[in-house]
Amino acid sequence: MIIVLKPTASKEEIDHIVSMIEKEGLRTNISMGESQTIIGVIGDKTRLTNTPLASLASVDSIVQVSKPYKLASRDFHPDDTIINIKGVMIGGGNLGIIAGPCSIESELQLMNIAKSVKESGSNILRGGAFKPRTSPYAYQGMGEEGLKLLKKAGAEFGMPVITEIMDTSMAGIISEYSDMLQIGTRNAQNYSLLKEVGRSNKPVVLKRGMSQTIEEWLMSAEYIMSEGNRDVILCERGIRTFETATRNTLDLIAVPVVKERTHLPIIVDPSHAAGKWQYVTPMALAAITAGADGIMVEVHNEPEKAVSDGAQSLKREKFAILMGELKKIAPVIGVGFNLN
Amino acid sequence: MIIVLKPTASKEEIDHIVSMIEKEGLRTNISMGESQTIIGVIGDKTRLTNTPLASLASVDSIVQVSKPYKLASRDFHPDDTIINIKGVMIGGGNLGIIAGPCSIESELQLMNIAKSVKESGSNILRGGAFKPRTSPYAYQGMGEEGLKLLKKAGAEFGMPVITEIMDTSMAGIISEYSDMLQIGTRNAQNYSLLKEVGRSNKPVVLKRGMSQTIEEWLMSAEYIMSEGNRDVILCERGIRTFETATRNTLDLIAVPVVKERTHLPIIVDPSHAAGKWQYVTPMALAAITAGADGIMVEVHNEPEKAVSDGAQSLKREKFAILMGELKKIAPVIGVGFNLN
Amino acid sequence: MIIVLKPTASKEEIDHIVSMIEKEGLRTNISMGESQTIIGVIGDKTRLTNTPLASLASVDSIVQVSKPYKLASRDFHPDDTIINIKGVMIGGGNLGIIAGPCSIESELQLMNIAKSVKESGSNILRGGAFKPRTSPYAYQGMGEEGLKLLKKAGAEFGMPVITEIMDTSMAGIISEYSDMLQIGTRNAQNYSLLKEVGRSNKPVVLKRGMSQTIEEWLMSAEYIMSEGNRDVILCERGIRTFETATRNTLDLIAVPVVKERTHLPIIVDPSHAAGKWQYVTPMALAAITAGADGIMVEVHNEPEKAVSDGAQSLKREKFAILMGELKKIAPVIGVGFNLN
Amino acid sequence: MIIVLKPTASKEEIDHIVSMIEKEGLRTNISMGESQTIIGVIGDKTRLTNTPLASLASVDSIVQVSKPYKLASRDFHPDDTIINIKGVMIGGGNLGIIAGPCSIESELQLMNIAKSVKESGSNILRGGAFKPRTSPYAYQGMGEEGLKLLKKAGAEFGMPVITEIMDTSMAGIISEYSDMLQIGTRNAQNYSLLKEVGRSNKPVVLKRGMSQTIEEWLMSAEYIMSEGNRDVILCERGIRTFETATRNTLDLIAVPVVKERTHLPIIVDPSHAAGKWQYVTPMALAAITAGADGIMVEVHNEPEKAVSDGAQSLKREKFAILMGELKKIAPVIGVGFNLN
Repeated sequence: MIIVLKPTASKEEIDHIVSMIEKEGLRTNISMGESQTIIGVIGDKTRLTNTPLASLASVDSIVQVSKPYKLASRDFHPDDTIINIKGVMIGGGNLGIIAGPCSIESELQLMNIAKSVKESGSNILRGGAFKPRTSPYAYQGMGEEGLKLLKKAGAEFGMPVITEIMDTSMAGIISEYSDMLQIGTRNAQNYSLLKEVGRSNKPVVLKRGMSQTIEEWLMSAEYIMSEGNRDVILCERGIRTFETATRNTLDLIAVPVVKERTHLPIIVDPSHAAGKWQYVTPMALAAITAGADGIMVEVHNEPEKAVSDGAQSLKREKFAILMGELKKIAPVIGVGFNLN
Repeated sequence: MIIVLKPTASKEEIDHIVSMIEKEGLRTNISMGESQTIIGVIGDKTRLTNTPLASLASVDSIVQVSKPYKLASRDFHPDDTIINIKGVMIGGGNLGIIAGPCSIESELQLMNIAKSVKESGSNILRGGAFKPRTSPYAYQGMGEEGLKLLKKAGAEFGMPVITEIMDTSMAGIISEYSDMLQIGTRNAQNYSLLKEVGRSNKPVVLKRGMSQTIEEWLMSAEYIMSEGNRDVILCERGIRTFETATRNTLDLIAVPVVKERTHLPIIVDPSHAAGKWQYVTPMALAAITAGADGIMVEVHNEPEKAVSDGAQSLKREKFAILMGELKKIAPVIGVGFNLN
Repeated sequence: MIIVLKPTASKEEIDHIVSMIEKEGLRTNISMGESQTIIGVIGDKTRLTNTPLASLASVDSIVQVSKPYKLASRDFHPDDTIINIKGVMIGGGNLGIIAGPCSIESELQLMNIAKSVKESGSNILRGGAFKPRTSPYAYQGMGEEGLKLLKKAGAEFGMPVITEIMDTSMAGIISEYSDMLQIGTRNAQNYSLLKEVGRSNKPVVLKRGMSQTIEEWLMSAEYIMSEGNRDVILCERGIRTFETATRNTLDLIAVPVVKERTHLPIIVDPSHAAGKWQYVTPMALAAITAGADGIMVEVHNEPEKAVSDGAQSLKREKFAILMGELKKIAPVIGVGFNLN
Repeated sequence: MIIVLKPTASKEEIDHIVSMIEKEGLRTNISMGESQTIIGVIGDKTRLTNTPLASLASVDSIVQVSKPYKLASRDFHPDDTIINIKGVMIGGGNLGIIAGPCSIESELQLMNIAKSVKESGSNILRGGAFKPRTSPYAYQGMGEEGLKLLKKAGAEFGMPVITEIMDTSMAGIISEYSDMLQIGTRNAQNYSLLKEVGRSNKPVVLKRGMSQTIEEWLMSAEYIMSEGNRDVILCERGIRTFETATRNTLDLIAVPVVKERTHLPIIVDPSHAAGKWQYVTPMALAAITAGADGIMVEVHNEPEKAVSDGAQSLKREKFAILMGELKKIAPVIGVGFNLN
């Protein structure tokens, strides 16, 4: 940590700051520039969490040098983490292909889709039972009935399943039926929920908050990991920008940035960012080419009848084409599938 | 609702769409342009929630004409809502002045601050007991002990009190001690929590999500109201933009926009957007001048020792100066205080 | 300037960096932390402009400590700059009230508006003769004919006039007719144009780029000043964000930030950010309350017939009401007008 | 175009609007909803450019149905445009690989880089002679001397060359030496410059403005095309968002969106968005996979000595590796190179 002082900072003020820091057991290094003095702080900065140096009149700014996340940082864990979900591996060259409907609507619908995505090469089944909707008047999901169908479909077609957990009170019921827990974009900084899933033994897919910086996103992962659960998969799903031609802006450059900073796997959800199915396939392929450890794609048997997100869902045949393209690209760039 | 068709849409496709709409009991109006056809939809659009017209190949785009929020809309409730919090009014020309520390740290600290802000003209006391922090390693708040102190301070100085609720599981304990419930920016689209406070009988201050559009924010208010609780106060606290000189960008133009669209009161929190105390006073005054129904300001007795948000907290004397300025401006622009 | 090294940086790499810096005549201060080394650089950093330290493999990041703008910085010019435009002062407690139509349309239109805004308390007349329009098919302005009318109206009603310069080739003709030069938001980083107006002897109103940070904006001012022209007035006009309810987001917190960093005056244009006339008056009053040195407002005699920006133009009577409010607020907050 | 009226609009107001529209020779279609009336406008909307309907008190909003760009629109030109630059084709399955240094620094530097990128598979040489720099004190380029070297290097290695034009006054000199004209991100809405290059007979690479929507970007292309020059290549180079881990956010989903809307080729510049060379290769490969018609990459022989943009420049060997990967991916996704 570096403390940049104002040009007007006095000797007394500098001494005061140094003593505040040393009182917490850290060391300092003072560098006097031509117009400004800077103080380097050496030691465990978490001890200074409650020392509000930034509010001092003589301080111009504080610069963080070391990363605020530890468990998620690649600095202390250089090898890629590979996460094992009932035999399906994600990370370290293993692609997770998560597909399924936005909302579970009926047994027939889910079974049809599950069969199809499995045949196309998907290795994990997704499906929403409790839906976060912008409007309180929109369809809110099938609830527990949907979870039962999801578990049944996963067993039938040999795929682990994933669904979203929206609140701490749902932890018991979701864990009963689902092999993985998904944290949605609107809950990416719901710290109570992050801690709750951190105490679970299920792998977590952590979607990036709609306007979360990469560093904040890794801090959300750190929240989960700090409670004991190390099986976190990051999921880029588009960020909010001024552009209105797409629902969100898919930040694919986040893939190499995240890979540089953390050992955790990162997958990409092109469906939510695109908002239109036409853009899903090129973005899914681009994501894998950029180094992502997998994709999460909304697939529907009859998108024009879907109760949610129909516009951005791929038909089953389109998903098969996407997977065909992906199987051609994967060996060229050196990544593999768990199955097929 | 208007459905804009692609230039390539066929007669059959148009008929199909019309029948989908009429099947739900709505009427249509077809307008054939020189290159494109548009279909106007007349009737209750919520019936179409589960009819995914946007996914049809012949549809170019869907334009919403009527507002998706009803209870919050000024269209059906032209008069300003005035909210009564144990005798303190907010809205309709009555200013709520909410002040206090970011975190409750001790009885001495809280009593000192409460006494001071009351004397300066504040009419509601704020204080955090459970803190949402970006880092799991940062101070997380005093918990229930802090809530007890808050209630005590409010009683001592005759001010209703407000604190943040972070999770549905906290509803009982927070309601026991606090007169108002605050939803923080990171939970602005935590729908489980919104519904929970919607079932409470306490007034709710709903902070705008960091990257929430005004329409989405009003939909979050609608979530609360649709469960029965009509006492919602909106709070603009800065949005996330590319600018890094301030912690967030305070969107003051949201004040007249919100006033135009809803009857609910809107207050402004300049502290979190500013990130530096120097910018708080001018922004608080500007907010009231722009028409806000109140402010929420972080005040601390010793900002340089605050356990959180010290840099953006006003000292008690600075807050007194802010209130002095505000009392000069208020009569000029025709708004009043509940007390002093 | 501070150079943060990677934990893996070797002794040789550190020595290499130090020698690169010392070769340019600067000094260094090395601080070895527990996991990382940082190098403080002391002396004139402009000498390092062409030393691309950031590209070295051992460098994690570079932190700028001192401000990159010198002429614009308040550090070296603590007093407010007051700019004199033919007797009208802006800055240091003097408000510039710039009003007039978006586009000059006819002599009758301009004279009507000029007379009215003068009577209401405006002290500078604006009017566009060459218009930057998003579409090549939209009205592009009256050209030189408009400039002649502008000069005539200014003379008739005793107000200096301002109009936009869009290209270096226009410098001669604009300077012939206008007392001030306006740089529009789309040209805020057109460096050829900034240098050109920097060689002029006319005061310049520099609008903020739609997505320009405050620091970049001050660098644009520095471009003008570095060519000799010190009479620069900054104009906040809204930045681009995700919000779509307004044309742009008016960043009023930029007012105190700019005042802290530079001695140059700052005015606010609420019309372009709002996009709707209803929001203009509250934002104009809020801007002055926040400390702005003036406003720039679009006024039209018949907004519903304006060839451009009709929706955001105030009618003359509405502008008179705005000025009436402003005259009540100004003495309360201690600022003055040049006239009336 | 659709005009949405307020619920309060009277019969007289509706009639007035209809007559305003019909006076310009267009037709209307009125649809009365349960709470609101909407008016569809049929005919050539450019006739309404100067009819400010949005400013009328009875109008809630205006919705544009048809695209405001005509020459750039795929609606009227369904086939991909292929641009021929002295025999090098871009578009329609032909990849343009533009590489070279950010700034031309010396003959030796440029020849070294040109030779290397040609051998690796580049087919167009880039190099900056006049540089737009945020600071007036930073290196501004070699000027005409650099242009001469660029022309010489292009001739020597058989590649057409491209350089940036920053101002209308440079049109003559740039055209003398360069085969293509580049419009930089800061000039993307410098309409005087767009018109100037629209009168040239050289192909133009139009970089997207840092905060330009896709629609505005296509309008900038329309500006060029409306003056006669149809050879426009769009270049996505990153947009400005809240994320600070990268210099900009590369908007790759813009590739399929642009391909859907226009027949013009689109290439991607990953160097400027990344800001760090480590992210350039994955983003270049992802861009081509997403369907881009080429890439523009900064390559330097000694990035650690580059006078500008060293941190984001690829070394020649890294560029060779990138091209090796690209040659493996290209046949899989069905695109070709002009040479090698």
